[in-house]
Parts: sequence; C-alpha cells; structure tokens
Amino acid sequence: MFITFEGIEGTGKSTQIGRVRDYFEARGREVLLTLEPGGSRIGVELRKMLLHVDNREITPITELFLYLADRAQHVGQVIRPALAAGKVVLCDRFADSTIVYQGYGRGLDTSMLRELNEVAVNGLWPDLTIVLDIDPEIGLKRATLRNIEDGKAKEEGRFEAEHLSFHKRIREGYLTWAALNHRRMSVVDAAGTPDQVFDQIRAVIEACGDGAA
Amino acid sequence: MFITFEGIEGTGKSTQIGRVRDYFEARGREVLLTLEPGGSRIGVELRKMLLHVDNREITPITELFLYLADRAQHVGQVIRPALAAGKVVLCDRFADSTIVYQGYGRGLDTSMLRELNEVAVNGLWPDLTIVLDIDPEIGLKRATLRNIEDGKAKEEGRFEAEHLSFHKRIREGYLTWAALNHRRMSVVDAAGTPDQVFDQIRAVIEACGDGAA
Repeated sequence: MFITFEGIEGTGKSTQIGRVRDYFEARGREVLLTLEPGGSRIGVELRKMLLHVDNREITPITELFLYLADRAQHVGQVIRPALAAGKVVLCDRFADSTIVYQGYGRGLDTSMLRELNEVAVNGLWPDLTIVLDIDPEIGLKRATLRNIEDGKAKEEGRFEAEHLSFHKRIREGYLTWAALNHRRMSVVDAAGTPDQVFDQIRAVIEACGDGAA
Repeated sequence: MFITFEGIEGTGKSTQIGRVRDYFEARGREVLLTLEPGGSRIGVELRKMLLHVDNREITPITELFLYLADRAQHVGQVIRPALAAGKVVLCDRFADSTIVYQGYGRGLDTSMLRELNEVAVNGLWPDLTIVLDIDPEIGLKRATLRNIEDGKAKEEGRFEAEHLSFHKRIREGYLTWAALNHRRMSVVDAAGTPDQVFDQIRAVIEACGDGAA
C-alpha cells in the first residue's frame, strides 16, 4: 500500500504521517516513511538545491525538472523496492505537489505536467493521497513557528518565503486537483487538533482498504 | 548565432570550439563559449552529479531529468541573454546529446525525448549543429589519454567507463539523428588533423550564414 500526503506548509503533515505509521505498525505492518524532495541519496542533494532560499535564480522549468529527477530516483531506488518487499510506504509529498506547485502555483501547463509526471513515476501512482487542507494564513503561521524552533528558517524556506497570495493559489489548486482525482485523493480538514485530524485520516484509510491493507 | 557541437568523447570538440571562437572574434564578434552539462551556476552542481563515476546508481530517467534541468537553466539564464546581447554562442553539447545518449544509448523513447527537450529549450533551437564524427575506438583512446593528462580520470569519466559497444551505439545514433535533421545538423569527419577538421567546420559555418553572421 502506497499512501502520499499533500498540502501547503503548516498543515501538520509530519505529525499525521507519524500517526499513520503508528497505526500500521500496531497492525503488524512494516512501514517506510519517506519524503519528496530528498527521498534518495541523490534526492538529498537535489532537495538542498530546490529549497535553499539563495536559489531564487532557478527558472520555473529548471525547478520542474529537478523535482522530476528527484521523483524518478525516489520511485526507482526507494519506493518500488519497499513495496515489492511488502512494506506500507508513506510519502510526504509526491507527484501531485508538482501539478499543484508548478501548475496552479507557477502557471505551467497542468496537462504537460501530468505527462512529465507519468515519465517520472513510471507507472507507480499512489493507492491513496490524503490532502491536508487549511487556511494559508494559519498554515504559514504554524510553518514559520516550526522553522524558527528547528533553526532552519534561513536555509530551507524558499516556499514559505513566497507571498500569501501564492499559498492561496496552492491551496485552491489542491482543492481543484483533488476534486478532479477524487477516486484517489481525499481532502481532510487540518484545522482541528491532531487527534481530530487523525480520526478523519483513519476513516479514509479504512474506507480505502480493509484497514490493515 | 547559436552553434552547438556534438559527438562522442575524443573527437576534439574542445579544440575545434576554440578555433571557431577565434574565427568569430577575428571577425569582430563577441563570443560566449559554454557547455552542457554545467553551463550555469546550478548546472555546475548538476554536472558533478551526472558525470561522477560513483553515481552509477542514477536511474536512466533521473539522469534524463537532470540533463533537462541543466539545459532549462542554461537556456534561461545564460544562452538566451547572451544571444539577446548580440553574442555568438558556441555550446559544447546541447539538446541533441539527450536524444542520442538517453535515446539511442540508454534505450529511452526518442519521440518522448524530443517532447521533453522542447520543454527544456523553450523555443530556442541552435541555428547550426556540428557533429564531429570519429571511430569510437580512436575517440576513446584520445579521451582516456586526455583524462590521464588532466588528472581527472577518476572523478569525471562515467561515460568513458561505458563499454565500447555503448559508444558505437552513440556514434550510430548521432549519424541517424543528424540525417533526420540534416537542415540544422552537419556531420564533420574528425579523424584528420585539427587544421583539416577546422577547414570542414569553417566551410559549414560559411555555407550556413555569410561567414560573419
């Protein structure tokens, strides 16, 4: 089972992914918790390039190809082998991020992005994608607090540094894209407490398979 | 005027590009001499990833996207501004390398590669592409000698380390691709002395424009 998690900054993705891992492990499943960009050794180098605030010179098309390179390596070297070994794979961001950030966010053509994603994922789409949804003003406040706590405000905040209007476009992009792909993607309200959010996610997972799928 | 130079290792591309630069400078033109991968600041980092012999774990699709990222950045940040400033741009490898190495060499679909190249070059194709052609056995011998002289045999030789059969496929790929694109691409025999090779290149350039185009 391959589950991806999407959403703007500050939705509490990391917290929820940890809970979903606990959920599957409590049911005896082996879980691989991974992320994009940066889920492979080469991806770690690409992540540094992509998220570093000093790299504002990157053109939108360069950015797109770097994300796709990261994804292709992640799928080929990490995700596919883990699924083949019977693990549950939980991934923080995946192909939908490219559609939403580069398409709805940066204005690149979404059908072109869909075709490029097909090349990168090479046939491997998630069984389920959970979109954590929150008002961007609340999300950005949370993300900024977290970055300060983690001491990474300066190195890894290229997307947080975008204007609020960008994050609003991204949120709307996620809602549109999820509606267009409602069989695979489920939107979850991320405004509540971690327990409230997880209850919704668990319901989605249990509706998707037998709950221990 | 935008001229690219293609061919397998050891054809003497660098030497000839230097001569073409001299040719244009002697005619009062300002010349930008550049290369792929590695023609932009971010490209330099990508070049290290792509050509390092330790990076054999890179999947063919990842490799493809890294080359395209390098190209998109190179076109947007370096080549297009130089052409807009009236310079002659001479580039060591460009989009045709992707078709030939990833397509004819690694077996990826050439029409898919052509579409991806269109995204990366964003409308900017060379006015002229010179393919330096040589028997791969001679070319590899030259490239190996050069790498030893330059002391870079260990760091930057991922392609030289491929089997001879790979380089034979690449050479044939170049000849096929050049035949399919004969209006833009000219094949030049690189087996002679540097003077003999340059005489052929000069003839091609002068046939393409007014010689000082």
